[in-house]
Amino acid sequence: MGCVQSFRELCDRPKNTNVRISLPAVCIVWQTAMIILFGVFIRYNEESDTHWIEQRKAKNISSDVENDFYYRYPSFQDVHVMIFVGFGFLMTFLKRYSFGAVGYNFLIASFGLQWALLMQGWFHSLDYSDGKIKIGIENMINADFCVAGCLIAYGAVLGKVSAVQLLVMTLFGITLFAVEEYIILDLIHARDAGGSMVIHTFGAYYGLSISWMLYRPNLNQSDRLQGSVYHSDVFAMIGTLFLWMFWPSFNSAVTDHGDGQHRAALNTYLALASTVLTTVAISSLFQKHGKLDMVHIQNSTLAGGVAVGTAAEFMLMPYGSLIVGFCCGIISTLGYVYLTPFMEKHLKIQDTCGIHNLHAMPGVIGGIVGAITAATATESVYGVEGLRNTFDFDGDFKDTVPTRQGGLQAAALCVAICFGVGGGILVGCILRLPIWGDPADDNCFDDEPYWELPDEEECV
Amino acid sequence: MGCVQSFRELCDRPKNTNVRISLPAVCIVWQTAMIILFGVFIRYNEESDTHWIEQRKAKNISSDVENDFYYRYPSFQDVHVMIFVGFGFLMTFLKRYSFGAVGYNFLIASFGLQWALLMQGWFHSLDYSDGKIKIGIENMINADFCVAGCLIAYGAVLGKVSAVQLLVMTLFGITLFAVEEYIILDLIHARDAGGSMVIHTFGAYYGLSISWMLYRPNLNQSDRLQGSVYHSDVFAMIGTLFLWMFWPSFNSAVTDHGDGQHRAALNTYLALASTVLTTVAISSLFQKHGKLDMVHIQNSTLAGGVAVGTAAEFMLMPYGSLIVGFCCGIISTLGYVYLTPFMEKHLKIQDTCGIHNLHAMPGVIGGIVGAITAATATESVYGVEGLRNTFDFDGDFKDTVPTRQGGLQAAALCVAICFGVGGGILVGCILRLPIWGDPADDNCFDDEPYWELPDEEECV
Amino acid sequence: MGCVQSFRELCDRPKNTNVRISLPAVCIVWQTAMIILFGVFIRYNEESDTHWIEQRKAKNISSDVENDFYYRYPSFQDVHVMIFVGFGFLMTFLKRYSFGAVGYNFLIASFGLQWALLMQGWFHSLDYSDGKIKIGIENMINADFCVAGCLIAYGAVLGKVSAVQLLVMTLFGITLFAVEEYIILDLIHARDAGGSMVIHTFGAYYGLSISWMLYRPNLNQSDRLQGSVYHSDVFAMIGTLFLWMFWPSFNSAVTDHGDGQHRAALNTYLALASTVLTTVAISSLFQKHGKLDMVHIQNSTLAGGVAVGTAAEFMLMPYGSLIVGFCCGIISTLGYVYLTPFMEKHLKIQDTCGIHNLHAMPGVIGGIVGAITAATATESVYGVEGLRNTFDFDGDFKDTVPTRQGGLQAAALCVAICFGVGGGILVGCILRLPIWGDPADDNCFDDEPYWELPDEEECV
Repeated sequence: MGCVQSFRELCDRPKNTNVRISLPAVCIVWQTAMIILFGVFIRYNEESDTHWIEQRKAKNISSDVENDFYYRYPSFQDVHVMIFVGFGFLMTFLKRYSFGAVGYNFLIASFGLQWALLMQGWFHSLDYSDGKIKIGIENMINADFCVAGCLIAYGAVLGKVSAVQLLVMTLFGITLFAVEEYIILDLIHARDAGGSMVIHTFGAYYGLSISWMLYRPNLNQSDRLQGSVYHSDVFAMIGTLFLWMFWPSFNSAVTDHGDGQHRAALNTYLALASTVLTTVAISSLFQKHGKLDMVHIQNSTLAGGVAVGTAAEFMLMPYGSLIVGFCCGIISTLGYVYLTPFMEKHLKIQDTCGIHNLHAMPGVIGGIVGAITAATATESVYGVEGLRNTFDFDGDFKDTVPTRQGGLQAAALCVAICFGVGGGILVGCILRLPIWGDPADDNCFDDEPYWELPDEEECV
Repeated sequence: MGCVQSFRELCDRPKNTNVRISLPAVCIVWQTAMIILFGVFIRYNEESDTHWIEQRKAKNISSDVENDFYYRYPSFQDVHVMIFVGFGFLMTFLKRYSFGAVGYNFLIASFGLQWALLMQGWFHSLDYSDGKIKIGIENMINADFCVAGCLIAYGAVLGKVSAVQLLVMTLFGITLFAVEEYIILDLIHARDAGGSMVIHTFGAYYGLSISWMLYRPNLNQSDRLQGSVYHSDVFAMIGTLFLWMFWPSFNSAVTDHGDGQHRAALNTYLALASTVLTTVAISSLFQKHGKLDMVHIQNSTLAGGVAVGTAAEFMLMPYGSLIVGFCCGIISTLGYVYLTPFMEKHLKIQDTCGIHNLHAMPGVIGGIVGAITAATATESVYGVEGLRNTFDFDGDFKDTVPTRQGGLQAAALCVAICFGVGGGILVGCILRLPIWGDPADDNCFDDEPYWELPDEEECV
Repeated sequence: MGCVQSFRELCDRPKNTNVRISLPAVCIVWQTAMIILFGVFIRYNEESDTHWIEQRKAKNISSDVENDFYYRYPSFQDVHVMIFVGFGFLMTFLKRYSFGAVGYNFLIASFGLQWALLMQGWFHSLDYSDGKIKIGIENMINADFCVAGCLIAYGAVLGKVSAVQLLVMTLFGITLFAVEEYIILDLIHARDAGGSMVIHTFGAYYGLSISWMLYRPNLNQSDRLQGSVYHSDVFAMIGTLFLWMFWPSFNSAVTDHGDGQHRAALNTYLALASTVLTTVAISSLFQKHGKLDMVHIQNSTLAGGVAVGTAAEFMLMPYGSLIVGFCCGIISTLGYVYLTPFMEKHLKIQDTCGIHNLHAMPGVIGGIVGAITAATATESVYGVEGLRNTFDFDGDFKDTVPTRQGGLQAAALCVAICFGVGGGILVGCILRLPIWGDPADDNCFDDEPYWELPDEEECV
């Protein structure tokens, strides 16, 4: 801790929020790099290339509707809305940080998805015959997923960092994500359709660790801005609802065609419905006069979608989904009531959006639920072929049995946590360097240093 | 009326808006009940079960894309947006009830869809071989539809009831809906793709009757809050537009595959476009200086979608859809100008959102249009097979002729009205009991009793 | 110019914003005309008619999923959201013109799509055997596209015209659009999937020419209202994001089934991502202290989607899409910084939303990119069949070679510009007549003359 301390002192120089050189430079240089790397590496895949018609005939595919585009595009668009409107507007709740919330979310997602196409492409879609990454609709969805991890992390540091820091955080976040995802899905061969582990657990611990590294002891100087106003809470509900409504698409977007997508959507739909009721119950129970707290409604209602991510494609059963949602609504809301203040006070983790309650805990629960559901899978429930399809017991893994798969799922969860915490500490160190244009403690949660603001509304 | 009067006096005790016990209790107990009932009754259907691959082969289905999921999921997501963002934001127009509008809408829809899966399941999806309800994408859509009925009813009592009352209202509303729907669709064998009768007429009269039972003679004490502000009207337009845009999906979501969905979407698209123009015309004509009224634009523009619900899947013809929209825009807007004040003053029905103009009248018109269109259907227009498919003249109903079908449609409309009025009066009685935590007359249309509100925005 | 000048004087009579007669009259008469014309001309097409099932069997189509509805409906709904929420909310940025922005957008789009179904139907979907226009899902998408051209034009005159003027502008705009589209797509046989030329270039020059004809030398009298407030900028971001997210659907909505839709969506997705980074870079670089300007983020981030419209279905390659986006982000943002003030001062073109930067320049770039991409197409890249399919080298055009196609694309661009400028000047003349109820110079950008406004929010 001594070395951390001295590093902290080194970094605590006066803040300069002028990013007129650094932000344009990073944007232009990185975007140019993307163009070059895309030029070298990225091509259309079979289904998005004009040769598709020949392939179709060669493979005797009867109809254009068999193009994966038609299986996945509606889900992709829903996921896309979650990334840009969902995450963006969810964070607009602060009274004077709506521009930063929705604008920076827009920026880092747009950069992140390009870098994700490359990173995930190298691991998953590389055509060894010509050394090119072949992309199509599934890559677009996975890139959006990858970005989601970084946007979750943004929630922890919302209002306390500059756009340049966010871009750096995204660059490393996507890189770590792709490695972690490769280990979990390919090497360990765990299943994680909705990304409870790969996306939510990783993203949340990544963000929390960064927030811990960037701890600001005098953040209370910005207290006047760290709250909502009436209208900003309504804006945030737009984000909440689009996340909530489209979460079935999120969890089913890359699952197996047919019953896989169908079941994942259904399970998620049910888990989320259940979460809303327990969130309301706990929120009301822990406030004076039984009043509801918008923070809980905006966030904890989503916890069921996170927690059902891994198991959504399994035979979790409708009541199983309801149970998962039931528990997560309670745990997540209690997290906002007790854990967030505790973490800020005693663990020095300042978690602006409460991602620990919305993503970290439900993500871990999701991993555990997934492990248990996998371990208890039987041929009588799944059918012989169904079991093989659902868990992809094929190729090198054709002899895996459900109990072993349960163990693999648990191992995957540990990998996600380790990557999140480890990566976050590392990147947090980098972000402490006094060159990124982050705001001073009394200047947090304010759009003013980074945005041309319109004149205040006059009151009549 | 004497007994009603004395009952009213009994109920008019001082109000206590503290729901700290009742709200959590209802949420937890009911959600637990849902889990138990789902555990006992609800399973995946053939298309969302891992055995689908075996079924597919057994039934010689060529491709996964034949899974009903791909026919209906995009429409489902649109309907889902209508339920949560559409209805939720449409009601945010009040200056200080946006939290309640969007938050309670969220709560009761989340509860309602679970109860609807059960209720509708018992009537429509029960597998008698094992006593289980088998659910899939179509059940999800129908559950959302069922919820829509209750959300419409919420519009009538917006700002005057507590969350607990809304949950009670939803519990009974869903139950009545499922019975009414069973009578109309199965026993009477009427067609009602977009639910003009089943959803809108029923929901609106259910809400209006409740509002009549809960009449508040001194509601003018809350007058200062019963209006909009500039920004809240813009928020409400989000709801309006998402309802308007996705209404073609609503009316086509559960119609026949192929031309049925295609035609229903097209008819609804046209009817809605037509409604906008006549709404603007009447709104401008009845205001000083020809100014437009946001209340009309937010609501009456949707009337065409309601009114075309029943007939959307029939051969209504494009011009027929335009005519329906044309008339409904006029009638609905005139309703806001003349009927709503009349009903409040003389009929003691306080209809906060004007659901009588948006759902009740257009719903009845929709039922009538449906009856006429059905009665005048001919084989020359529909084709032999087309006529049978469209009206489902199969099985027990294979000898039905169009004229008779027209009569059945009219009978169905009467059933919907009776269930709405009767059910509403019954449930209204229950809701008058002084135990539900509803606000006093001078405390209506205010989030303050039920929500932790942020500090007021400061003016600079 | 002398004649223009005297005409201007003739028109500069005192303004009367009372539209109580004219607006209802136009709405009712035109809607009635629509009903009559639809009654005479418009019928369901094969795939939305109840005879579809017979057609299906006759043509040996294996499944209902081959109905074009399932290929296009998800894209249609996305486009529909862009038209009504995207364009509508993008224009809500003005502090006191949000009702007009979203409300008039709603009105003219609803009228426009009906008229577009007729106009485009006569040119493209007329069944010569019975003289009827046969419509289905593709017509609905094209009608929405056609409307987009007029909504773009609305951006130039936002806040300075009355609803009646907008309706007149839409009537002529749709008519011109349909003719221009027929010339470009059918006579010249250019390809323009996303409408860079047909929609954006035409629409923008149409609007700019009208704005030039309606030049208001004393518009600075409304300066106090020609800006945003904090919340109105957040509302506008809703529009921006829905346009941005669904643009892949816009550009792919009417492209070829299979790889065509797949590739168009992918290219658009990439171009838009790239645009965001360069927009942020230039916005930051040209402001003091590197602050970002919301106007740029709201608008220029969309330029890549416009510019990739024509070439999106070609083999533009992923890096090609990124390059197009890269350039357009820079050019569009520089346009806001330098060109818009220049045009207002020296060219007398008052462009409220900066459509020259968002639609005109990127549209022209898109046309040029399309021409180059077409001219350089080779069989080795596209495949023999792929080349023929992509450029539709069939029938009368089966001998066209790519280089010639490049020339045709360039010719098409010129046609779009000519129609836009010429049509705009003509319609601008008509709109200068002092009968349309437009506001005085000191009354622009204000909802007050045309809308019943709620009382101002009180400050506590």
